[in-house]
Amino acid sequence: MKLNQFTDYGLRILMYMSRKPAHLPATTITELADQFGISRNHLVKVVQFLSNNEVLDAQRGRGGGLRLFNSAGTYKIGKLVRLLEQDEELINCENPRCILAGDCGLKGILNGAQNALYEYLDQYTLEDISQPALSKTLQALFEAPSDQMI
Amino acid sequence: MKLNQFTDYGLRILMYMSRKPAHLPATTITELADQFGISRNHLVKVVQFLSNNEVLDAQRGRGGGLRLFNSAGTYKIGKLVRLLEQDEELINCENPRCILAGDCGLKGILNGAQNALYEYLDQYTLEDISQPALSKTLQALFEAPSDQMI
Repeated sequence: MKLNQFTDYGLRILMYMSRKPAHLPATTITELADQFGISRNHLVKVVQFLSNNEVLDAQRGRGGGLRLFNSAGTYKIGKLVRLLEQDEELINCENPRCILAGDCGLKGILNGAQNALYEYLDQYTLEDISQPALSKTLQALFEAPSDQMI
Repeated sequence: MKLNQFTDYGLRILMYMSRKPAHLPATTITELADQFGISRNHLVKVVQFLSNNEVLDAQRGRGGGLRLFNSAGTYKIGKLVRLLEQDEELINCENPRCILAGDCGLKGILNGAQNALYEYLDQYTLEDISQPALSKTLQALFEAPSDQMI
């Protein structure tokens, strides 16, 4: 069970942008391609989608580029994943066409389970999962000299 | 987000076998291939796996074939899906290697979300989702003449 590659790339882009200090220039596709090693082709599709859905704000021209449309704390992860997954269901009864289709309890409970997954993810925002300051704090804790034991 | 094809086939096989009247002969790979239009190659792998994990019981020889190892009501769907998915995680930080790997809150919450999905599915057993009798009951209810309204 894997998130779509489209979703994966979308989340990486958004996490990168939510961590990027605000005083730095807006992000470009080239920058994302260089940083992530993802092809421009893929990135353009994801960025376009996120821009169309008002998750990213794309400004053309000089000094232009990509920014988050709203602050990172407004984006629930469940909502982002649901959006990027574009209604893909966990199971495909048509490929190959299943003889039990139409008389099957599995599809309904898989839909319920997928909703449970999204609801879990909605407990967290883009800000929650992009906390470089927090991890530096943890890092400092791990590196601090412990009290001397006699 | 899709279940693995391996999981999909495993569930179809198990649902088929849990509905099959007990007095009929044990199920064969040929029968499954004919009924589902799935290649023997794929089926053998799934059946072998389910047999190794004591979900299916495979008897060789005359009158042999496949049966459920235990009754359908003992198999929780979450446990079956977890088994068939073989620990696959929702996201792969290595392909391509993500620059945020190791300093990222996403993986942890995706693991939590995946567990929430499995816990939801564990509310149901193979018996619950393979209820041809129930669907016939519902069908009868829908077809029963309503009381006459004056």
